[in-house]
Amino acid sequence: MPDQNLEVIPLGGLGEFGMNSMALRYGEDIIVIDAGMMFPDSELLGVDIVTPDFTYLEQHAAMVRGLILTHGHEDHIGGVPFLLSQLNIPVYGTEFTLKLVERRLDEHEMLEEASLHVVEAGERMQLGPFEIEFIRVTHSIVSCVALAITTPLGVVIHTGDFKVDPTPTDNELFDLHTLAEYGKRGVLLLMSDSTNVDRPGYSESERAVRPRLEDLFSRCERRLVISCFSSSIHRLQQILDLAAEYGRKVAFLGRSMLNVTEIAHSLGLLSIPDSTLLRPQDIMQIAPDKVAVVVSGTQGEPMSALSRVAVDNHKHLYLQPGDMVALSSRIIPGNEKAIYRMMNHIARRGAELVYGSMNPPVHVSGHASEEELKLVLNLVRPRYFVPIHGEYRQLSRHAQLAEHLRFAGLKDTFVLETGATLIIDSQGARRGEKITVGRVCIDSGSLDDVVEDIVIRDRRHLSEDGFVLPIIAINKLSGKSEGLPEIVSRGFVGGDNADLLQEARSVVRRTLDSSSPEELGDWGVMQEKIRTDLKRFLSKQTQRRPLIMPVILEV
Amino acid sequence: MPDQNLEVIPLGGLGEFGMNSMALRYGEDIIVIDAGMMFPDSELLGVDIVTPDFTYLEQHAAMVRGLILTHGHEDHIGGVPFLLSQLNIPVYGTEFTLKLVERRLDEHEMLEEASLHVVEAGERMQLGPFEIEFIRVTHSIVSCVALAITTPLGVVIHTGDFKVDPTPTDNELFDLHTLAEYGKRGVLLLMSDSTNVDRPGYSESERAVRPRLEDLFSRCERRLVISCFSSSIHRLQQILDLAAEYGRKVAFLGRSMLNVTEIAHSLGLLSIPDSTLLRPQDIMQIAPDKVAVVVSGTQGEPMSALSRVAVDNHKHLYLQPGDMVALSSRIIPGNEKAIYRMMNHIARRGAELVYGSMNPPVHVSGHASEEELKLVLNLVRPRYFVPIHGEYRQLSRHAQLAEHLRFAGLKDTFVLETGATLIIDSQGARRGEKITVGRVCIDSGSLDDVVEDIVIRDRRHLSEDGFVLPIIAINKLSGKSEGLPEIVSRGFVGGDNADLLQEARSVVRRTLDSSSPEELGDWGVMQEKIRTDLKRFLSKQTQRRPLIMPVILEV
Repeated sequence: MPDQNLEVIPLGGLGEFGMNSMALRYGEDIIVIDAGMMFPDSELLGVDIVTPDFTYLEQHAAMVRGLILTHGHEDHIGGVPFLLSQLNIPVYGTEFTLKLVERRLDEHEMLEEASLHVVEAGERMQLGPFEIEFIRVTHSIVSCVALAITTPLGVVIHTGDFKVDPTPTDNELFDLHTLAEYGKRGVLLLMSDSTNVDRPGYSESERAVRPRLEDLFSRCERRLVISCFSSSIHRLQQILDLAAEYGRKVAFLGRSMLNVTEIAHSLGLLSIPDSTLLRPQDIMQIAPDKVAVVVSGTQGEPMSALSRVAVDNHKHLYLQPGDMVALSSRIIPGNEKAIYRMMNHIARRGAELVYGSMNPPVHVSGHASEEELKLVLNLVRPRYFVPIHGEYRQLSRHAQLAEHLRFAGLKDTFVLETGATLIIDSQGARRGEKITVGRVCIDSGSLDDVVEDIVIRDRRHLSEDGFVLPIIAINKLSGKSEGLPEIVSRGFVGGDNADLLQEARSVVRRTLDSSSPEELGDWGVMQEKIRTDLKRFLSKQTQRRPLIMPVILEV
Repeated sequence: MPDQNLEVIPLGGLGEFGMNSMALRYGEDIIVIDAGMMFPDSELLGVDIVTPDFTYLEQHAAMVRGLILTHGHEDHIGGVPFLLSQLNIPVYGTEFTLKLVERRLDEHEMLEEASLHVVEAGERMQLGPFEIEFIRVTHSIVSCVALAITTPLGVVIHTGDFKVDPTPTDNELFDLHTLAEYGKRGVLLLMSDSTNVDRPGYSESERAVRPRLEDLFSRCERRLVISCFSSSIHRLQQILDLAAEYGRKVAFLGRSMLNVTEIAHSLGLLSIPDSTLLRPQDIMQIAPDKVAVVVSGTQGEPMSALSRVAVDNHKHLYLQPGDMVALSSRIIPGNEKAIYRMMNHIARRGAELVYGSMNPPVHVSGHASEEELKLVLNLVRPRYFVPIHGEYRQLSRHAQLAEHLRFAGLKDTFVLETGATLIIDSQGARRGEKITVGRVCIDSGSLDDVVEDIVIRDRRHLSEDGFVLPIIAINKLSGKSEGLPEIVSRGFVGGDNADLLQEARSVVRRTLDSSSPEELGDWGVMQEKIRTDLKRFLSKQTQRRPLIMPVILEV
């Protein structure tokens, strides 16, 4: 009879969007599943990325046996460098996932100390009292796994992110058989992805975008530009195949696009037909109807390749009438305005825009819709169910879905938010104490710069380094800013140094003067440029890194 | 032969979303079509509404013959009080539209001086050299018209907002015949609504939501709460009819919902079955399965009725498990986070949420999709085409659509943004000079308060009244804020008065102390509460109205 409790400890991603991380504890042993990041709300001006607060793990450092990664998306691996800097534990994941982690660790000069262990779908391993089996699942990124974790109290299944794609482009199918077998033998607890619980029916297969992509290739008479997530290897493969078929060379644009495709290619996950690749600097050198450009920046990130192309500020590609730009991606909530702004700029270039819902689709989701979630619930038929990965409305709907199914054996469902724990013992499951969780805000500077050193500065640091608020008035009519910008600061060591602030105002002025009218018309770009330049200046002068929040006003 | 030019002068809504306004000038005569407002971007913290800059009209005051309104949506009439305060010109519109305008003018104590003239669809009137015919169109609000404006140079058609609904719930059909007749006789210029140009096919009829509403009425075993725009009279009628059928009484919640339904009812546009109405204060007094509540606040506005219900802070309605809340509305871009936050709160109450896309739909758009736009283009077949109402990508797509149709007679299309003019004379059409346009930001205080006096304060006023920035650190774990909040101010007369600022900090502290944990967890609500309270305090102490931007930090 097991004499210890099993504790389920959500560190991030439950009741919030992104930065997924979950700890499991049995007695004196803890394992961690995923360590993601999220992009900040607009309320967090001046912050680039947000990770979970790993204080709980630090406090129990001696017990933590390892970090297990389900797949390589940023909301599952983006926090790894920050977790490892606090707690250098071994990391387990598939080869592709770990390659993406390596890249991040390398940027932070942490790769040498890290202990990374490649596992494969179908493999099992032991970490303390936990026996972990990796189960292949399908999703928008390749090499994804769910976890079946056998504990002394029973089996815990964690799905990671998934959809049930019956025809994945790499023909690596969701391992429903293993899931079914666990379900047959009895599962104590299921934790399942809730992202798309509010979508009825089934999510379409990744292959469903091929007819639309083919339509673009056959219709486009000049340059075809397609933007998608750099990690969407399935999507990239279909684009490469079609390009070869239609006699176009393919250029990748954007740092992440170049890195990820290189990794995927080196692992044999992305097959690139002979002499298909074109260097970015050669895009404008060959006939427009002989090139397809795959570019990162679907979310309108101000410094991304596509945002730069949109405002005619990319050295390797400029758009012309007759070009076609397809956004093969979804809009992450909160990014609408930035994306629409980017799209307006692209339309001004005269390029045809392809985006949004249409049939056949130009994008399909990587997350399971309602019927797929039911399938997994019915296959696993756990005793307890905890929906994961979603805001409260999604978690509660997923819980209702499970209760509605009424499969044999379901005893209870728990809607847990980050920090709310669940305790399971031989008597059953109940809610435990709340633990210390939260968000850590990190400013990594311009996402397109090489990150030289990481400044971890959560909001508590505001009281240490304060903030600086440059206010720029831009004349709506002329598109120009007049006079010296204002700078407001608080809690910043240089804030009472009039000369320093005066110089800082000139720095902002110089940034404005060196910007093109296109850039001046795009507040997102300007805020980022001003922040980057002012940060460099203040850091050099004061060795401080205040929160910089540029405010641009139209007058 | 006409010896004057016709000028098309977009004052708002072209190349931007909302605040639609268009002027037409022939010689020394100007008419204005619509005077809308927009809700501000999140970049404009502390601003409640935005209207076009009517400087051009002020400069040509002696020429302006009148304002013609196409329909009663805020993005077409919300700027009327501000235009009339600068320029008291006669206003023309349908009865329902003018009743909505009256309400706004009354709030600003401007009703007595205003000169409002009711017109009907099918009527014609003369304003200087312009003969205007009002043509009935279908849209999500009732009593909408398009305009056929006969000028010495030819006919100009302005569609207002529309869709081509073959089965409107009030059986008042789109007057396609009159449009066709103008098309047959020859139209100089068409200006047509571009909002939904990126949606393929046809927009569904308003009647398409009835099966879904019926499903909710038949399924819901307790209180049924439906949120929609208060101006969606068609939608309200369907809810009222179903309520009578299913034996539920109907209560309206929210000030705008109460006002608008009263207006519509008094004009015979909304028929309310006998003894169907329930007073808000009686909602909780009758059996839960005998009531349907129609509530305003679909966009998650912090002070709206639905937002208050969501955080359990409405005196007339609290949600319980088994209640159903349907969002019969779309998400206006930029409001996603606020709406999702509200939905999460509703889910926490245990209510079932119905929202998003489904079949049958719980909401249909009031704007024409691609095929309807083609229909209107083909019927009118103008010589020149100017797409209106949309961001650049939508305008340019609509222009491409017109060119793609290649109907006989189309000479040119022009993508004009606000401020860019078009000049037409007997030689043809060409772009004219740019005129002074822009945005005026207005702070009307809490939208749920009675607006006592209007403070028109555009961003230039920042240099006069400055800003005040309260910074509140909220402990993520406890949900509480600790210590006295910080206040940063700049350009504000009281900003160097240490006592005043100290007192202001205490004001914010008191606001925090008097808020429920639910409210403290909702930043939107807290920002609004702090802003309202601090504004009242500072205004009283200093007779100044600085821009107040509460910054809430989780630590």
